[in-house]
Amino acid sequence: MIRKLTGLALLTALIAGPAHAQQGSPAVSPFVMNTLFIVFCGVLVMWMTAGFAMLEAGFVRDRSVVSQCAKNIGLFAIASTMFLLCGYGLMFPNGNWELPGVIGFGGAIGVTDVVDGRNDFVGRGHAVASDVFFQSMFCVTVASIVSGAVAERIKIASFFIFTAVFTAVIYPIQASWTWGGGFLATDLGFRDLAGSTVVHVVGGVAALTGVLFLGPRDGRFKDGKKIALGNHSLPLATMGTMILWMGWYGFNAGSYLSFSTDADAANVARIFLNTNLAAAGGVLVAAFVSYLRNLRFDLTFMLNGALGGLVAITAEPLFPAPFWAFAVGMGGGLIVFWAVRLLDHFQVDDVVGAIPVHLFCGVWGTIAAGFTNPEATVLGQLSSVLIIILFVGIMTSMVWIVLRETMGIRVTAAKEAYGIDKSDFQLNN
Amino acid sequence: MIRKLTGLALLTALIAGPAHAQQGSPAVSPFVMNTLFIVFCGVLVMWMTAGFAMLEAGFVRDRSVVSQCAKNIGLFAIASTMFLLCGYGLMFPNGNWELPGVIGFGGAIGVTDVVDGRNDFVGRGHAVASDVFFQSMFCVTVASIVSGAVAERIKIASFFIFTAVFTAVIYPIQASWTWGGGFLATDLGFRDLAGSTVVHVVGGVAALTGVLFLGPRDGRFKDGKKIALGNHSLPLATMGTMILWMGWYGFNAGSYLSFSTDADAANVARIFLNTNLAAAGGVLVAAFVSYLRNLRFDLTFMLNGALGGLVAITAEPLFPAPFWAFAVGMGGGLIVFWAVRLLDHFQVDDVVGAIPVHLFCGVWGTIAAGFTNPEATVLGQLSSVLIIILFVGIMTSMVWIVLRETMGIRVTAAKEAYGIDKSDFQLNN
Amino acid sequence: MIRKLTGLALLTALIAGPAHAQQGSPAVSPFVMNTLFIVFCGVLVMWMTAGFAMLEAGFVRDRSVVSQCAKNIGLFAIASTMFLLCGYGLMFPNGNWELPGVIGFGGAIGVTDVVDGRNDFVGRGHAVASDVFFQSMFCVTVASIVSGAVAERIKIASFFIFTAVFTAVIYPIQASWTWGGGFLATDLGFRDLAGSTVVHVVGGVAALTGVLFLGPRDGRFKDGKKIALGNHSLPLATMGTMILWMGWYGFNAGSYLSFSTDADAANVARIFLNTNLAAAGGVLVAAFVSYLRNLRFDLTFMLNGALGGLVAITAEPLFPAPFWAFAVGMGGGLIVFWAVRLLDHFQVDDVVGAIPVHLFCGVWGTIAAGFTNPEATVLGQLSSVLIIILFVGIMTSMVWIVLRETMGIRVTAAKEAYGIDKSDFQLNN
Repeated sequence: MIRKLTGLALLTALIAGPAHAQQGSPAVSPFVMNTLFIVFCGVLVMWMTAGFAMLEAGFVRDRSVVSQCAKNIGLFAIASTMFLLCGYGLMFPNGNWELPGVIGFGGAIGVTDVVDGRNDFVGRGHAVASDVFFQSMFCVTVASIVSGAVAERIKIASFFIFTAVFTAVIYPIQASWTWGGGFLATDLGFRDLAGSTVVHVVGGVAALTGVLFLGPRDGRFKDGKKIALGNHSLPLATMGTMILWMGWYGFNAGSYLSFSTDADAANVARIFLNTNLAAAGGVLVAAFVSYLRNLRFDLTFMLNGALGGLVAITAEPLFPAPFWAFAVGMGGGLIVFWAVRLLDHFQVDDVVGAIPVHLFCGVWGTIAAGFTNPEATVLGQLSSVLIIILFVGIMTSMVWIVLRETMGIRVTAAKEAYGIDKSDFQLNN
Repeated sequence: MIRKLTGLALLTALIAGPAHAQQGSPAVSPFVMNTLFIVFCGVLVMWMTAGFAMLEAGFVRDRSVVSQCAKNIGLFAIASTMFLLCGYGLMFPNGNWELPGVIGFGGAIGVTDVVDGRNDFVGRGHAVASDVFFQSMFCVTVASIVSGAVAERIKIASFFIFTAVFTAVIYPIQASWTWGGGFLATDLGFRDLAGSTVVHVVGGVAALTGVLFLGPRDGRFKDGKKIALGNHSLPLATMGTMILWMGWYGFNAGSYLSFSTDADAANVARIFLNTNLAAAGGVLVAAFVSYLRNLRFDLTFMLNGALGGLVAITAEPLFPAPFWAFAVGMGGGLIVFWAVRLLDHFQVDDVVGAIPVHLFCGVWGTIAAGFTNPEATVLGQLSSVLIIILFVGIMTSMVWIVLRETMGIRVTAAKEAYGIDKSDFQLNN
Repeated sequence: MIRKLTGLALLTALIAGPAHAQQGSPAVSPFVMNTLFIVFCGVLVMWMTAGFAMLEAGFVRDRSVVSQCAKNIGLFAIASTMFLLCGYGLMFPNGNWELPGVIGFGGAIGVTDVVDGRNDFVGRGHAVASDVFFQSMFCVTVASIVSGAVAERIKIASFFIFTAVFTAVIYPIQASWTWGGGFLATDLGFRDLAGSTVVHVVGGVAALTGVLFLGPRDGRFKDGKKIALGNHSLPLATMGTMILWMGWYGFNAGSYLSFSTDADAANVARIFLNTNLAAAGGVLVAAFVSYLRNLRFDLTFMLNGALGGLVAITAEPLFPAPFWAFAVGMGGGLIVFWAVRLLDHFQVDDVVGAIPVHLFCGVWGTIAAGFTNPEATVLGQLSSVLIIILFVGIMTSMVWIVLRETMGIRVTAAKEAYGIDKSDFQLNN
């Protein structure tokens, strides 16, 4: 039994006088250390959810702020649940492949006692429950990426159903190809340490298909030009970006999954440093390029530049020397600037810039890993990211089509004009 | 002496070439590991203070936002101080019972040298100072629960005095009954790992007596119906909820107080996972039930559903399998929905929903632990929570009465109409 | 290679049944533990950047909020970069002194492979990359201190150039005198564990010279009296303060740089506790004094009181018993109250109160360490802080003068009246 009984032991000790209590006590094992590392990194990844929520609530118009917050807290709950019931088993088939290397199911975690005593101690470097917790947070992240792009006109119930399918099936299956021992890892030598592709490209593709099926917000484009619609609060968006920056340390470092040997410690410390430098590189380039163009700074580009740099370093935050990590991040910042203009050109309305940041910079980071990671090849990286884009593009399109043909995915024009917060939410309690 | 003298050692090493520095160095002890775990969990619990502040600042009206922030930063300082001077000693009598199992005093921490060298090493699993730090943050939390409920009409000086008495005496004495080796733990077999009762029910009861003595805000109820008064900022309230969600991992996991064996690691990892799932369950149920009722989503219910789920799992986050943790959280979400309507029916004005979340879900979680924790009995849980409700109800009522009869607890109607920020605060520096 | 291959190992384990996996595995080394401690403390220090950003965005007027956010995300990127290229080498000369104890250069980190394998394992207590990461965050902090004071009228490009010089050269050189084995530490016996002087006084002096060269905002003073100009959002400022409070645990504790022995654990835990108590003391005094003066509470003073207490305990958070830590913090709160009025008297316009908090309380904390730290002398502390004030005052003044005479440091009166967000930023994307 565990109690906070600090009293008696303390008293005894006060009487006995200062003595070292741990004499002869067993040393701390790598299992303990790894598990501690993973749960705290998991907390940092969880924190990114709040980052996405504030980023998105800051970028949307006043009229959609409540609905955006509800989408983010709702998707957190849905992704956590679906991943437990079904996603984790699909992501880590544990050798139970139906189609070898492609699809399999390792068992549900929530309804059986898989985490319940039986295998908490088995021959792994860390506790199973810490793994499930950490991986759940990744699954939440991938859903968060979508919610910003489709903001202000999607039916919230449809978004929730999309999220359930996306996190239960689509994300985990493709993740098993890389992280679950599937064919991309084994046959193509694909390397993606923390998920430039497995998380960010996947989220970005789902965002892209989403906005394509939804169409732009009313009034977003006029005569082929983008109209500024305004933002609720740029300080909140800044806060959101800084939260994401903070959480990303845990996202990239935690993916190393081990912190017990001296080599682990040195490597993971380098991941912290490189992750930070990539974000810095992204900010500097995005600030500089947008300043050159308009002789004004552009906060939105600076924020998305940071995120672009972070996404880019995610595939390989360990191998590059600090300067190269910085350069990879600079590439991210540049791509964000260019991709935003590309989307505008095609009149694609991505409310928060999720597609430039996560899809485009994710592809860049994945390719860059082909150069920085000696175990990866550019060809293997490229073919793997294309396969995943194709798979996720087709699967998410099918879900959007089914939703559109049944319950609909877009609110009525009248509701959109009135504002979805007022039309669809219970306000002012 | 401790210095950041990284220079010389580094130079030496560069000359000597790469060599493993730790050869023959002593292994890390459980004492070190436990202490690290507890201080970082303490930081997460401290962070909940910001969560309460943002939740409450988000839910009150524009006119009361400054006063709400001041209450939160003030109560943090007061609770930290009082707990050090008096609360910690009352909570952990260390066998110095005046009335065995009921009241005793283990000595003040702040004015003596208890933490000062003498017993930092004594026969405990972790450093005394880490324990004081961690427990202080719990004491801050219990005060934070009250501040939201009594918002917008309480005299801030009276609130601060109430907080001082509450955190110095009332909270610690009842906490000693359970966590200090007192009669509830020893005689009734009461089990409450992280404080569904010891923290949340206690805070909730103080909130309830507070709002009962204060009465509802002017204009809150008209002809027996609740009038919506508006909120300052739902994004801030969302941020606050996500902060609380994040901090709660440390709240529940840190209460395990140990992270040195493989069993510890596996158990604590499960606490992280279960805590997350209970929150998810609370969100889903609250969202679903409020949608069923109004065919609209209700962000406030989703946020309070998350908190209700978290409070419910707090009594026993370790034993239940993940699915059952999720179910306990669902119960919390349901209870929040029902309890808000109950309070409305009785025209009790709880500005942020603290009573439904902390009192009602706390009782539910305490009873649920009677089923999930094999060491607890439903009868022991029920009788213990009732004894604590009775004690805290009487004690806090006495404090409110004394304050009402001396300095008063409610601002004048004129000030309330004008807004307490303008009437009682120095604004615009 | 590192993979998330949780599958196969798990399967094997399930078949083999529950067995302890770590049998015979090597124990965790102090190197691992220290590195873990330092990277997580580094994350907390990074988080302070968000605290400064929100504090400053909250305190400025609506019209300057975007520019303030851009300054903060921009300085983060600049400081991270400059410190890597040049600052870290100047701060830790590793014995390569040009002028012994005064200036030297230990090598650039970013462009060479210093962190790249060669010396990640060398004879240090923690990984080099963790040190670079942690120290980078300190460098970011020192730049953050300046940005608030000079808000609302500085040219943002000039601010960025100032930041680059400040973080590349000025901060690191003086830091080498104390933390890099330079003459203040060795000849004057200067002791400043986490940087009351090395970080906060330095940032405060740069803020002071900045506002002196800039002059007050238009309309700030009229007939010798301060005019209240309003704040964007006090809840955001409260959030920022709580973030800083949270991050400060890592700032002070991480500066201990070691967490591997029982003594380390006990000492660091005490730093957590003392840091918290100093903040509490600062809040209580600032609240009490401002209440006495106006019979109203003043949230701004409470927030800056917390920060003043934190700055004050930073020089020596380990030696004082908790009660004395509390008292040192109380001194900080008092000084903030008095220094704000002093600056007002001299018509110095420090938008967020950075100079009272960081410069004045930093000096106080440095002197206090002369009493609480048995290794320090009041004379050594005083002379060291004066030398640093002189050096930073002269150096930053020179930079401001060069900037003023070339590109200018202040926006035009027309732009200031219009608001720098509108005149200098690309808004509404």
